[in-house]
Amino acid sequence: MTDTRFAPIAEQVRGVLASQGFMQLVGADVAAVAPGEVVLTLDRRPEVLQQHGFFHGGAIAFLVDNATTAAAGTLIDRATQAVLTAEYKLNFVAPAAGERLTCRATVLKPGRSLTIVEAKVTCGDRDADGKLVAVALATIAGIARERVA
Amino acid sequence: MTDTRFAPIAEQVRGVLASQGFMQLVGADVAAVAPGEVVLTLDRRPEVLQQHGFFHGGAIAFLVDNATTAAAGTLIDRATQAVLTAEYKLNFVAPAAGERLTCRATVLKPGRSLTIVEAKVTCGDRDADGKLVAVALATIAGIARERVA
Amino acid sequence: MTDTRFAPIAEQVRGVLASQGFMQLVGADVAAVAPGEVVLTLDRRPEVLQQHGFFHGGAIAFLVDNATTAAAGTLIDRATQAVLTAEYKLNFVAPAAGERLTCRATVLKPGRSLTIVEAKVTCGDRDADGKLVAVALATIAGIARERVA
Amino acid sequence: MTDTRFAPIAEQVRGVLASQGFMQLVGADVAAVAPGEVVLTLDRRPEVLQQHGFFHGGAIAFLVDNATTAAAGTLIDRATQAVLTAEYKLNFVAPAAGERLTCRATVLKPGRSLTIVEAKVTCGDRDADGKLVAVALATIAGIARERVA
Repeated sequence: MTDTRFAPIAEQVRGVLASQGFMQLVGADVAAVAPGEVVLTLDRRPEVLQQHGFFHGGAIAFLVDNATTAAAGTLIDRATQAVLTAEYKLNFVAPAAGERLTCRATVLKPGRSLTIVEAKVTCGDRDADGKLVAVALATIAGIARERVA
Repeated sequence: MTDTRFAPIAEQVRGVLASQGFMQLVGADVAAVAPGEVVLTLDRRPEVLQQHGFFHGGAIAFLVDNATTAAAGTLIDRATQAVLTAEYKLNFVAPAAGERLTCRATVLKPGRSLTIVEAKVTCGDRDADGKLVAVALATIAGIARERVA
Repeated sequence: MTDTRFAPIAEQVRGVLASQGFMQLVGADVAAVAPGEVVLTLDRRPEVLQQHGFFHGGAIAFLVDNATTAAAGTLIDRATQAVLTAEYKLNFVAPAAGERLTCRATVLKPGRSLTIVEAKVTCGDRDADGKLVAVALATIAGIARERVA
Repeated sequence: MTDTRFAPIAEQVRGVLASQGFMQLVGADVAAVAPGEVVLTLDRRPEVLQQHGFFHGGAIAFLVDNATTAAAGTLIDRATQAVLTAEYKLNFVAPAAGERLTCRATVLKPGRSLTIVEAKVTCGDRDADGKLVAVALATIAGIARERVA
């Protein structure tokens, strides 16, 4: 897909994310939106941590939820379809110690009714990817646009 | 376990949850802590919703994360062990429309190294359980207390 | 649903399972087919065990795969739809030591496009349910019948 | 790890797999054993198929179960530890039509108590990898050797 054709799709995806109250509350940033891939980041501040000073698992899950669903949303026919998170599974593989969480979601298999997306979450300095802290596998449903509000 | 023996454990579990910056940010309440079971609730406000006005999947995942880990934490030997969320899988089964989310986590199988917990999340009025909106299955690791900060 | 209306559906579900080469190879039995619920059993023999003499995790997964998909299949409109296993997650909670595995799959949430099913697998004597050895959560897709062979 | 040091580990892993009754029944082959990676294959024959002539989901799950656990087993201290499948999640992304299933399991994060492994399953001709039919994410527990039979 050319950048020209993808630009309005990326714009829509960013617009949907920006319109979420929870996205605003948690304060994540959209670092990249490309066909089949979305990257979200979250900077360290006390409000997104757990009791030991690591990023909270729920904050990681939130990034996974939004990044995987948005990644699937880049590949559907947005005129007629919308995406809905059906399920995901999330493994925490190391404590999320660092200044910035980066969640990269990549579509493994697009589909009209189901899209399979993997996500890798790293944690490190603000200018580097850091080390792997979580991995996830998500199933995103494509549904007819009239079925959502 | 008698209530007398469990009371200090419940107190500790509530204390850990209250000390989390993310728990304070999201604003969830601890409705119940019993041996092998924890119930968290989250009341509707714009900051915890997604773009269509339903509770955000990430807010649901956050409740599942905390409730399942805390439920496992009620059954370990807290003098020597701490709990760590190893992984969970979460299915969204209906849009979370309603005034209050209730996440009930129940230990299916306790264990010294791994505890298996299921969670059911309902959404409805503030005075009723509402309908099922998500189900989850979590694996919580028990680790030696000196290994956590 | 009356027994009279469900009987031909149960018959079809049993027929599909019986026609699978892998079902015949593993040698599982269909203990029950009811609306939204299917129970499969597998008797101990050396061919279904792992290296320590417990039932093999793959044999447990096979029961979960078939039981959850078949349970979803009892609730769809079989004239126009077929079921397809989209994904499942399976936790092994205890070694499967015993004479018989019993996998009970129960639909948590039916749906035209996605059905959510949980499964509990127990292991014990041939005349008792035994103890819990595995739990699973599955997503089954309903697809238009013309899309399958 | 040098090949010389790894050779006896690979030999042990192959030996464990070969000793499983279920492995013999299903008839899978061990294509590769390397540090942190195991590849299993399964050739098409009627006994491993489902009702539409595709490889059965249970046969795919069996490969995932064995390959992920064995991959974790290549990285533990085999003198003192054994591996136990704690859980996995498996997404089926396309019908497994072809002559040979290939399941490649790769350790994402080794650990003394928990190892995280991903698996990709492809299906195609006997001399090519084929297309992606399933992806999985597994948690494998390392336990003290005296705790297993």
